Amino acid sequence: MPIPGTDSGLLAPTWAGSPAEDEVTDEAFLRAMLETEAALARAQASLGLVPEYAAKAISDAAERAQLNLVALARQGRAAANPVVALVPAFTAMIAADNPDAAEFVHRGSTSQDILDSACMLVADRTLRLVTGDLERTARAFAALARTHRDTLQAGRTLTQHAVPVTFGLKAATWLQLALDALVRVRSVALPAELGGAAGTLAAYGEYAALDGPDRSGLPLGGVELMAPFAAELGLAEPVLSWHTARTPIADLGAVLQFVTGALGKFALDVQTLSRPEIGEVSEPSAPGRGASSAMPQKCNPVLATLVVTAARQVPAHALVLAQSMLAEDERPGGAWHAEWQPLREALRLTGGAAHLAAELAEGLRVHPDRMLANVRLTDGAIVAERLNVALAPALGKATAKRVLTEASLMAAASGKPLADVLTERADLVGVITAEQLTDLLDPARYVGAAGPLIDRVLSRASALGVTA
Amino acid sequence: MPIPGTDSGLLAPTWAGSPAEDEVTDEAFLRAMLETEAALARAQASLGLVPEYAAKAISDAAERAQLNLVALARQGRAAANPVVALVPAFTAMIAADNPDAAEFVHRGSTSQDILDSACMLVADRTLRLVTGDLERTARAFAALARTHRDTLQAGRTLTQHAVPVTFGLKAATWLQLALDALVRVRSVALPAELGGAAGTLAAYGEYAALDGPDRSGLPLGGVELMAPFAAELGLAEPVLSWHTARTPIADLGAVLQFVTGALGKFALDVQTLSRPEIGEVSEPSAPGRGASSAMPQKCNPVLATLVVTAARQVPAHALVLAQSMLAEDERPGGAWHAEWQPLREALRLTGGAAHLAAELAEGLRVHPDRMLANVRLTDGAIVAERLNVALAPALGKATAKRVLTEASLMAAASGKPLADVLTERADLVGVITAEQLTDLLDPARYVGAAGPLIDRVLSRASALGVTA
Amino acid sequence: MPIPGTDSGLLAPTWAGSPAEDEVTDEAFLRAMLETEAALARAQASLGLVPEYAAKAISDAAERAQLNLVALARQGRAAANPVVALVPAFTAMIAADNPDAAEFVHRGSTSQDILDSACMLVADRTLRLVTGDLERTARAFAALARTHRDTLQAGRTLTQHAVPVTFGLKAATWLQLALDALVRVRSVALPAELGGAAGTLAAYGEYAALDGPDRSGLPLGGVELMAPFAAELGLAEPVLSWHTARTPIADLGAVLQFVTGALGKFALDVQTLSRPEIGEVSEPSAPGRGASSAMPQKCNPVLATLVVTAARQVPAHALVLAQSMLAEDERPGGAWHAEWQPLREALRLTGGAAHLAAELAEGLRVHPDRMLANVRLTDGAIVAERLNVALAPALGKATAKRVLTEASLMAAASGKPLADVLTERADLVGVITAEQLTDLLDPARYVGAAGPLIDRVLSRASALGVTA
Amino acid sequence: MPIPGTDSGLLAPTWAGSPAEDEVTDEAFLRAMLETEAALARAQASLGLVPEYAAKAISDAAERAQLNLVALARQGRAAANPVVALVPAFTAMIAADNPDAAEFVHRGSTSQDILDSACMLVADRTLRLVTGDLERTARAFAALARTHRDTLQAGRTLTQHAVPVTFGLKAATWLQLALDALVRVRSVALPAELGGAAGTLAAYGEYAALDGPDRSGLPLGGVELMAPFAAELGLAEPVLSWHTARTPIADLGAVLQFVTGALGKFALDVQTLSRPEIGEVSEPSAPGRGASSAMPQKCNPVLATLVVTAARQVPAHALVLAQSMLAEDERPGGAWHAEWQPLREALRLTGGAAHLAAELAEGLRVHPDRMLANVRLTDGAIVAERLNVALAPALGKATAKRVLTEASLMAAASGKPLADVLTERADLVGVITAEQLTDLLDPARYVGAAGPLIDRVLSRASALGVTA
Repeated sequence: MPIPGTDSGLLAPTWAGSPAEDEVTDEAFLRAMLETEAALARAQASLGLVPEYAAKAISDAAERAQLNLVALARQGRAAANPVVALVPAFTAMIAADNPDAAEFVHRGSTSQDILDSACMLVADRTLRLVTGDLERTARAFAALARTHRDTLQAGRTLTQHAVPVTFGLKAATWLQLALDALVRVRSVALPAELGGAAGTLAAYGEYAALDGPDRSGLPLGGVELMAPFAAELGLAEPVLSWHTARTPIADLGAVLQFVTGALGKFALDVQTLSRPEIGEVSEPSAPGRGASSAMPQKCNPVLATLVVTAARQVPAHALVLAQSMLAEDERPGGAWHAEWQPLREALRLTGGAAHLAAELAEGLRVHPDRMLANVRLTDGAIVAERLNVALAPALGKATAKRVLTEASLMAAASGKPLADVLTERADLVGVITAEQLTDLLDPARYVGAAGPLIDRVLSRASALGVTA
Repeated sequence: MPIPGTDSGLLAPTWAGSPAEDEVTDEAFLRAMLETEAALARAQASLGLVPEYAAKAISDAAERAQLNLVALARQGRAAANPVVALVPAFTAMIAADNPDAAEFVHRGSTSQDILDSACMLVADRTLRLVTGDLERTARAFAALARTHRDTLQAGRTLTQHAVPVTFGLKAATWLQLALDALVRVRSVALPAELGGAAGTLAAYGEYAALDGPDRSGLPLGGVELMAPFAAELGLAEPVLSWHTARTPIADLGAVLQFVTGALGKFALDVQTLSRPEIGEVSEPSAPGRGASSAMPQKCNPVLATLVVTAARQVPAHALVLAQSMLAEDERPGGAWHAEWQPLREALRLTGGAAHLAAELAEGLRVHPDRMLANVRLTDGAIVAERLNVALAPALGKATAKRVLTEASLMAAASGKPLADVLTERADLVGVITAEQLTDLLDPARYVGAAGPLIDRVLSRASALGVTA
Repeated sequence: MPIPGTDSGLLAPTWAGSPAEDEVTDEAFLRAMLETEAALARAQASLGLVPEYAAKAISDAAERAQLNLVALARQGRAAANPVVALVPAFTAMIAADNPDAAEFVHRGSTSQDILDSACMLVADRTLRLVTGDLERTARAFAALARTHRDTLQAGRTLTQHAVPVTFGLKAATWLQLALDALVRVRSVALPAELGGAAGTLAAYGEYAALDGPDRSGLPLGGVELMAPFAAELGLAEPVLSWHTARTPIADLGAVLQFVTGALGKFALDVQTLSRPEIGEVSEPSAPGRGASSAMPQKCNPVLATLVVTAARQVPAHALVLAQSMLAEDERPGGAWHAEWQPLREALRLTGGAAHLAAELAEGLRVHPDRMLANVRLTDGAIVAERLNVALAPALGKATAKRVLTEASLMAAASGKPLADVLTERADLVGVITAEQLTDLLDPARYVGAAGPLIDRVLSRASALGVTA
Repeated sequence: MPIPGTDSGLLAPTWAGSPAEDEVTDEAFLRAMLETEAALARAQASLGLVPEYAAKAISDAAERAQLNLVALARQGRAAANPVVALVPAFTAMIAADNPDAAEFVHRGSTSQDILDSACMLVADRTLRLVTGDLERTARAFAALARTHRDTLQAGRTLTQHAVPVTFGLKAATWLQLALDALVRVRSVALPAELGGAAGTLAAYGEYAALDGPDRSGLPLGGVELMAPFAAELGLAEPVLSWHTARTPIADLGAVLQFVTGALGKFALDVQTLSRPEIGEVSEPSAPGRGASSAMPQKCNPVLATLVVTAARQVPAHALVLAQSMLAEDERPGGAWHAEWQPLREALRLTGGAAHLAAELAEGLRVHPDRMLANVRLTDGAIVAERLNVALAPALGKATAKRVLTEASLMAAASGKPLADVLTERADLVGVITAEQLTDLLDPARYVGAAGPLIDRVLSRASALGVTA
């Protein structure tokens, strides 16, 4: 008989030991299912459909339940979900103390109501952590954008130097993405699930007719239960059952992949910029961090690596979640069941990545001297575009570009500074003076709207409550 | 030398001949790039940076341009994007008539500004079509939900009969998804792109200093251009360049996969329900539709099949779009370039699927008699849950369930109606009368809140402007 | 501080409690890493590079090691992989008893050599289980194909009845896929990994020069170690390090997704055929299996559902594994790290699915009577293709098809048998007699080469050692 | 009415203008379908089932057919595939000249036989091109590996310098992947498809009974047709119909994603190594290549970018192809139809990428001086692992590593060479001499088995027929 393992994160350093880890364990899911059963009983009690004492007994039991997780997991194979085994185990536990109350467990309910709602509870808790870490990250980016508003850096496109930027503008771009992520996490809807066996709420209504104060039932056949149930769980009230209308699941997938993508862009830039030949940023150091098992000198960008690791995995999970929309009938045979593990893994990868990104953003070491050295690396070629603008009136735009392309290639081939090559060209004599050239070739004078653009993003951050 | 093909949709019947097809051809993208160049010139003219005559000449040329698409496409290999070849070709075309105006083409710009903005234009046009078709589809669902409010149908979970539902509730679920899709399509942000070579807008600002009325340049270094440029294109104004902050692309992917997923659920249900053994719905007939090359009797659910076909492909495209967020530097070498084809294909698959879904929803033939026959197929077992509720007070919930499980299995094995099996059970003598049983076994009396739930979705539809 | 969970499979009933579960736990991976360290020491000892006593001490320690898994997992964050923390912990454990031996732990090695090799060990063990279950499944399919060689069934295309098939042919198709899967699992190459810090084996060679019998080092600089190391592990010998040549990982992903896809086709068919309206097969029954938390009558096809569940998830994991090929430098920062969890999950999903599929295939209950009833459901339309052939010589193929299309539509609309409709058509008078029609309309006479095709697949099965 | 576009590759510079482009156009697929119809007629004629004159007329017509592609594509919507409309159009074309022959078109066949076989024809032709380009690429890698056997380069892991490698070893790793790709492309099975309406070959057999020389039919009911049909197409003979056993499709997807992944690793390395700060390789130059629309100095690694672009897209297509295995019934309603576009796009992306990779590999410019400068960049730290080995006997492995980690950090922080830092450490006095240190710090003396490993891969290349 197989022995269940420890979900230690040995193969998932992105989330191992992160706050998010705790929210998505099998234990946490089981707890959320029990909380859902308790919330259902209390919601029914609030309508007079379940005796208060029973709702209380169920709630108490849900809190202190010590069920055999492994046994439940294996029994789950018989029904293709864990709730079918959970209900009698939980009922028996209550019945031991309070047989009357036990009759009211899972009253009118169905597996999917419990499991879907539990998933939303778990998502809600994880997303709270993600929100906090995104806010920290965004604040750190805002500070970087402000501090390095004028820190010159080489803008790079298709790996080559393009034109100068400022490091502040790069940080503002990271900030923009973090804010986009924050907006999406804050606004994703997490509804409770309530539908009964096939979405009609029929058994909830039927028990209401049996149990209600005056046996008159519920005029709306159980719809009355949706609001208090959702309220008990702190989740949104659904319009109708989403057993096969998987909007919340597809949306969650999209949001989680967005968050890791947004943070992944930052992490990828950190990896590139911390290459020894570039050396423009370093990860915050910590004892042992970045170490190798073999190479004593190594200081790897591990925070960035782990964030990228998440960003490479979450889209695949989101894909499975999106495909779960193709759900036949009133409950599908597979599309639903395939959601659970990808949802859990996407949640904890995102939670872990956000936590690491916050640490990385807050502790990022920036090396303006190396940035400046790299801007100057190509001896002027990085502002060739500017020269093009300056020469266009005299030469025409096309000719100016041809002249500069030739000069840049010659400069690169010969190792001469672009200024020298240009000065020596006969076709530029009288077109441009050495003084003009010196001015035009100063990269600090060609950062365009970097400053005002930073301001725009900082304003947006403030509007969203993110201030450094 | 390879011969370019016709993009006829031979292998893509989902979108072949659909209105969306026309919006995303190579020709349409080329047109959109030219419109973007024109919009840029007009926006610059509105700030006095480009002479009016030049903006007009550029706009006129953009409208009537007959460029060699195939040549541009092949030249695109040299720069890894088509804009680098487009600019001189377009400039030359203008220069032939108006050499002065030609100097103002693509003034200060960069390939990605043009291509990203063109992609948003194309997306905008396709999404307008999708919106219209989603509205049609939603209206048709609303009508089905209203008409079949009380049409009894078997609710099915994991392929087996669960409890009765109404076909109206199923249509309401489809409606709920269509409304979710509509909300997402209506609200997705499609910003213009403007950043210049590395997002600083530097060359735009530099030309402004050169060309502006008083040579004073733009105080905000080019930011001033963003609003009029976006306005000319009818797109949203970006906060800053999104060259490497790919929110619009990732969002579009998520929205498109949501739409096809939402419609795919409907189509999958149509496929299942039109199986000959089930026979509860049929596709609208049209001459030749659903034909086979070999089998004369065939009438295949082709509309549903083609919608499902889209829903199986779009998530893969959306995945590539989501992964494009991992964009290094100020412009990535591959992540950007990998977006274009998936974006186009996802747009036209979604456009085609929405168009087909509207036709399918509007013309769906519903067979209430077959629905009723199927509800009765299991001779009462479909309301076993209700019996469970009814017997619980007398027997306890667990015993009641055991009794009914045994009786259901016996009924299934023997072919006897469940009512007969229950009547013969000794342990139910005195617990329930034959009359009660007859009442309890009537599936029409066990549809729960189907009606009120339909009303909730119809209300939401009205609030969103969708009325049948 | 987060509390690590139990990896119980609560959300993964496909593999919870399956034999494969045990092979891929965090504990199993840790064990495999220790076995790899031990194998390395023994391989080095076999070349005289490590003292025998040390290799023995390391091997013994690897077997009895009780390391703190959770601590290692969390320390793994500092290096982005668990090996960096494992080595000192394991070394310390040995040093406690045998300080001299401790010097020889992880001698010359690097994290990736250990972790990649451990992954291959784990894969090898899981694939052995998969192989066994695929053989069982294939044998069961072979038996079904043989038994039901002449069992008539409706062939269905695009959900509609097409022409008759035999259930034996359907089973032969499942068998063909199972054999394809088996061939791929049997032949996938699982090499040991050995490269040292950057693939040059340099430190292995350096220690060899230090430690070797005559201090002469290894003439091939460490290549000599590859064969004995692989042999110790029971893995294939690599040509060179695959730190960034991820063939084994991409291939594993492709094979695992193939296996679940192959079994998923079978499971999907079982789901369809066990719909109550179709009723042609049932899952093997077992106490409690297929139960619902609410509906006493329910008997869900849960084995099939759980196999489909795997088939919906594994391709997403395989995608991440395929994308890991895009590995920059001598070890990538993210692409490698993103492999581990998807590989583990794909392995156990495949292992669980194969185990369930074997049970489902062996126990599948087949209902030939229902198959026959369904073949007859369309009153002859299912052999319209055959009539087309028969009428073609007299009417021409196109006219014959038109006549039969009209007649089929009329039969479907009126509820009349096709035979009657045809008999009444004026244009068929004299073309075909009633006797001919009766013969032509017998579905049992129109199963083509079903039998010989079954034989072909059974022959292939025998050749692969699969005999019922 | 929408206007079909030109499939110019405007958005796909990876394949625009490549040899592969021509093989996968809509026109090429249509041609392949017609060739399949012709091959079927000839195969039937070879068995005496179709008159020779008819087979000849059909073959001739297939060669010269000028069908209306756009009309066929749109008619394809009615049947969800293009064959149903193609057959009457093609038949009518033949009937115009030869009405008797027209009766023998598509005799006994079904859409999927034609379209699946045509897909295999198209794949076969594209893979021939890929094979040639992989061989060119592999030869170029072999030459690089041989030439740069001793060219020192920094090995990089997680973006940081690790230990020295040789550029030859890096090229050998690329070669190893190219060979793996070549082996897979050469061995993937491309079978013809033949099954008839539901895989039984029934109509083929029925017509054989009608048409055969002695009206005796075919003893094996049509199986006899499989070998000659496959032979006519130059494809493999299938064991049985693969209408729903999608092995060839899933395998093709896996192979194509492997090829682009293998080449993508090379391209990604080229991108990294051609960063201006690293500068170790450059793309082959060509007029206009690598140009920017704005920046005159730009010389982007566009070949590498376009290869990476393919590698980022193909896995998503392969995923859809893998998921097509989940094919219900005897022909699925969507899974099949979703294959065509992804298959085509994956084929041409792979074809384009292989062609570009060959050009890149053959023309790659290597800069050994920059490689050497980068190896020396960290002033010795790159061989810290070697020092660790050397100091271990005296200090113990753990102490040696601690000492070296401290010294490396101090060297990095102070800018001093590692040698100086080490010389100054009190704890190393007497442990190591300055001469030893000089020797140990020479990176050229620490490339391990790079040479012998290169030889292993070159041997494998020779065995596969790849020699420079």
